[in-house]
Amino acid sequence: MSYFDVASTAPLHPVARQALSAALEEGWADPARLYRTGRQARMLLDSAREGVAQVLGARADEISFTASGTQAVQLGMLGALSGNRRRGSHLVHSAVEHSSVLHTAERHEAAGGEVGVVPVDRLGRVSPEGFAAALRADTALAVLQSANHEVGTLQPVAEVAEACAGVPLLVDAAQSAGRLAVPGGWSLLTASAHKWGGPAGVGVLAVRKGVRYASPLPADEREGGRVPGYVNVPAIVAAAASLRAVRAEAERENARLHALVERIRARVPQLVPEVEVVGDPVNRLPHLVTFSCLYVDGEVLLTELDKAGFAVSSGSSCTSSTLTPSHVLAAMGVLTEGNIRLSLPFGAAEEDVERFLAVLPDIVAGVRAPLGLNLPAPAGAAPAGTLVIDALGKRCPLPVIELAKHFGEVPPGGRIAVLADDEAARLDIPAWCGMRGQEYLGEAPAADFGADRGSAYLVRRTT
Amino acid sequence: MSYFDVASTAPLHPVARQALSAALEEGWADPARLYRTGRQARMLLDSAREGVAQVLGARADEISFTASGTQAVQLGMLGALSGNRRRGSHLVHSAVEHSSVLHTAERHEAAGGEVGVVPVDRLGRVSPEGFAAALRADTALAVLQSANHEVGTLQPVAEVAEACAGVPLLVDAAQSAGRLAVPGGWSLLTASAHKWGGPAGVGVLAVRKGVRYASPLPADEREGGRVPGYVNVPAIVAAAASLRAVRAEAERENARLHALVERIRARVPQLVPEVEVVGDPVNRLPHLVTFSCLYVDGEVLLTELDKAGFAVSSGSSCTSSTLTPSHVLAAMGVLTEGNIRLSLPFGAAEEDVERFLAVLPDIVAGVRAPLGLNLPAPAGAAPAGTLVIDALGKRCPLPVIELAKHFGEVPPGGRIAVLADDEAARLDIPAWCGMRGQEYLGEAPAADFGADRGSAYLVRRTT
Repeated sequence: MSYFDVASTAPLHPVARQALSAALEEGWADPARLYRTGRQARMLLDSAREGVAQVLGARADEISFTASGTQAVQLGMLGALSGNRRRGSHLVHSAVEHSSVLHTAERHEAAGGEVGVVPVDRLGRVSPEGFAAALRADTALAVLQSANHEVGTLQPVAEVAEACAGVPLLVDAAQSAGRLAVPGGWSLLTASAHKWGGPAGVGVLAVRKGVRYASPLPADEREGGRVPGYVNVPAIVAAAASLRAVRAEAERENARLHALVERIRARVPQLVPEVEVVGDPVNRLPHLVTFSCLYVDGEVLLTELDKAGFAVSSGSSCTSSTLTPSHVLAAMGVLTEGNIRLSLPFGAAEEDVERFLAVLPDIVAGVRAPLGLNLPAPAGAAPAGTLVIDALGKRCPLPVIELAKHFGEVPPGGRIAVLADDEAARLDIPAWCGMRGQEYLGEAPAADFGADRGSAYLVRRTT
Repeated sequence: MSYFDVASTAPLHPVARQALSAALEEGWADPARLYRTGRQARMLLDSAREGVAQVLGARADEISFTASGTQAVQLGMLGALSGNRRRGSHLVHSAVEHSSVLHTAERHEAAGGEVGVVPVDRLGRVSPEGFAAALRADTALAVLQSANHEVGTLQPVAEVAEACAGVPLLVDAAQSAGRLAVPGGWSLLTASAHKWGGPAGVGVLAVRKGVRYASPLPADEREGGRVPGYVNVPAIVAAAASLRAVRAEAERENARLHALVERIRARVPQLVPEVEVVGDPVNRLPHLVTFSCLYVDGEVLLTELDKAGFAVSSGSSCTSSTLTPSHVLAAMGVLTEGNIRLSLPFGAAEEDVERFLAVLPDIVAGVRAPLGLNLPAPAGAAPAGTLVIDALGKRCPLPVIELAKHFGEVPPGGRIAVLADDEAARLDIPAWCGMRGQEYLGEAPAADFGADRGSAYLVRRTT
C-alpha cells in the first residue's frame, strides 16, 4: 500500500524504533527514583530534552513533554490564558487552526472568555495586518499554526509574532516540526512526535522563559509542574532520536517531496475535470497537497482509493471519522466537497505518485458516472503555469536548443510546451527528455496554445 | 541488580514487548481513518479494549484509555464532580490516597468545592462506618483506593461501596489491577498499565454506564469524548496483552510473593533493632512491604541499598524525589522516618530476598554507627506472630508430632517455636524440616519464650 497520510500520523522512523528498543532496556525505570536504573532513566530523559530543545530552538528547561500534540495545545493555551489573566480574557486565533485549538477556544468562551477569529485568504493564509487588527489591549493569548494541516499553507509566523508585540503567541508547529526550521518569535510552541516519525504518546510544550503560565490541571511535580503523570521515558527518547534524524534528512527529502507535490498540483487539474487544487502553491509544506473534486463524496473517493492501494485523507483532519465539511476549506472560501489530502512520507516513491496519478482519473470518473454529468475536459490542458516556447518555423535541432535554453526558467515539477512544426521535433524532444532524465508528457494540439500550425510537445521538469 | 520497586513501575512484561513490537507494525496508523491500515489499528484498539474490560470486570464501552494513571484519576474525579454537581460539591476521600487524588482534591477545593477526608487506623485501613459517616447529602463523589501504594493494606472497597449507596465511588485500582480481582461496586475505576508490566503512557478510566460524567477538558471525539488527543494504539495493545498475561500468572505468583513478603515482615524485626513493619499483615497486597527504621535517613538508606544492588523506594511514592515525609504513614500514626518500601516483581527470586535480608542489618547499623547509639537487641526475637508449641516433658517423637499437628495454624511465612527438653528434638526437628521442605531457623534459649528448661526450636513455614 502507498501511505500518503503522514499528516495524520507517520510510520515509526527506523531510528525511533531502535531508540525505543534500547530505551525500553535502559530507560524503563522511574526517572524520579534515586537508585541506579532510575538515575539512568533520568539521564536519558535529560538528554532527550536537550536534543528536542536544540532542534526546536529552545532551552531544555523550556521543554515539557506531554502525552500528545492535542494535550500540548490544550495545556499551552489554558495555562497561558490563566497565567496572563491580568491582561484580560481575550483570545485570538486564526480561522484555520487545528481542532484542538478551536475546541480549547470554545471551552475558554464557555468559561466566560472572549475569542477573536482571524480570517484567511483564499490560499488559507492570515495576513500579519489582519492578525494585528484582531489584537486588543485585553488579549491574553494569540494562537497561530506554523503551517496548515489540511492545505499545507505556511503562515507568516515571524511577521505575526512581531505584530503581537508583547501579546504571548502560541505557535502550533505540529505539521512542520522536524521538516522545517521552527519560526522564531513564539512565546509557546507545541508539537507532536508521531507526526515526525516518533512514537505516539509524546507531545511537546515549550514555554519561553519569562512567559507567564499557570497550570490548568491539579498540581504534580513531573515535567516542571506542567504535565501531570508518569513520564514515558522510552517513548520520549525515541521521539527525540527521530526528530534529530528527520531534521538531518529534511533538506534532501523536502526538495524531492516538494517536486513530487508540484507534479501532483500540476497534473491533477490536467487529468481530472472540475477539480481545484487548494492552498498556497509557493509558500507551502513540501509534502502536502489537497484538491477538491466537484460532484464527488469524499468518503466514497477515499474508499475507492483505498481499494486501489492508496491511504489518503479527506475532510477536516481530526474529524474525518465523521466527514463533516472542513472548517479550513470553508474559511478559505474554496470547495469543501470531495477533497483529498495527500501528505507524503519521507522516502515516498516517485513511482507510487505516478501510479496515483494514473488511477485517479478513472476512479473519479467512476464515482461520478452514476450522476450522468456531461463534464468539460480537464481545465488544466494549458494551465497558467506552463511555459510556452515558440519554435515554430525553426529547423531541428533549434527546437531542442530552445527547450534547453529556457528549461531553467520553470521550477522542478513545472511544465513546458514547445510549439514546433519541424517533424523531427516529434522524435528529438522525447529523446532529449530521456537523455536528461526529464519527463515527456506527450503531444497536444498547437491550437490549445493559440498556434495555428505544428504541434505542442509537453515536457515536465522533474529535477 | 535486584529490582524491588515494582509499585513505582514494573519492567515491561515479555508479552507486552512482543505485543508492542507487533502493534508497531500492524497498528501504527490512525484508528480514526477509513483506509485499511486505519481500520486495522481500530480493530486492534477495539480488541484491546475488550480484553481490558474483561479483566477489570467492565463493559468495553465503559473503558477509556488515558495517558497515565494520574490522568485517569484527574479526569475521573473532575469529570464525575462536574457531572454530579447537582448533588453538590462535596468530595470525600481517604487520608491515604495517591498524591494524584490529593492534588485533584486540592484543586477542587481551590475552585470552591468542599473536601472531607476519611481517617485510617494504624494499619492504614478505612472503616466502612467511618467512610459512611463522612458522606453527606451533597457529596458528589467518593474516592477510595483498592490497596495502599505505600504499605499494601487492602481497603474494604465492597463494604464502602455499599455504604456509599448512590454516591458515585471512584476506586483507584492502580496498585492491584492485574494482581488481584477488581473489587465490585465502583462507579469509576482507574488504573495504570506500567504498574502491571505494560508500557508507560497508558492509563485506564472506566465509567460505569449511567454514571454522570462531564469532561473537564475541551471537547474531542477520541475515547468516547473523555480523553482528548491521538490514541496510542501500539502501547494500548501491549498494555492489554500484559494485563491478560499478568492476571493469568497472578494466582501462582501471588502466593509465592505473599510468602516472601511474610518472610521479610517476620525477619526484618529480628534482624534490625528499632524497626517497625507497617501496614496490614493479613489483608494486604501480596508483593509489597514497608518498614521504618528509627534514627535513619531514608535517602541515605536508599543510597546504601542501591550500592548493595537493591532498587527500593522510600517516602511518599510520588514525592520521593523530594523525600518529604509520607502522608500515608503520617495518617496511620506510624513512624515516618527511615522507611523502605519493597515491592516485588513477578518472578522475584527467593535468593535475592535472602540476600536483601542478609545485607540489611549491616547497612542499617552502618548508617546508624556515627550516631553512637546503644540500641537494644532486635525486638523481634519472639515476635507476636510466632506460634509457640509447648512440648516440654514430651518424649520423641511427640515434639515432632505436635509440630506437624499445629503446623497448619500459621500462614506460609509464619514462624513456629517448639519448646522441648528431649535431646532428640535437636535432630528430629531439623530433619522434619528437611523432609517437609520447611525452613529450620535454629535454636533459641527457651527463656525467650518464658520457659525455664529445654530449648526453643525455630521453624518457618515456607510453603
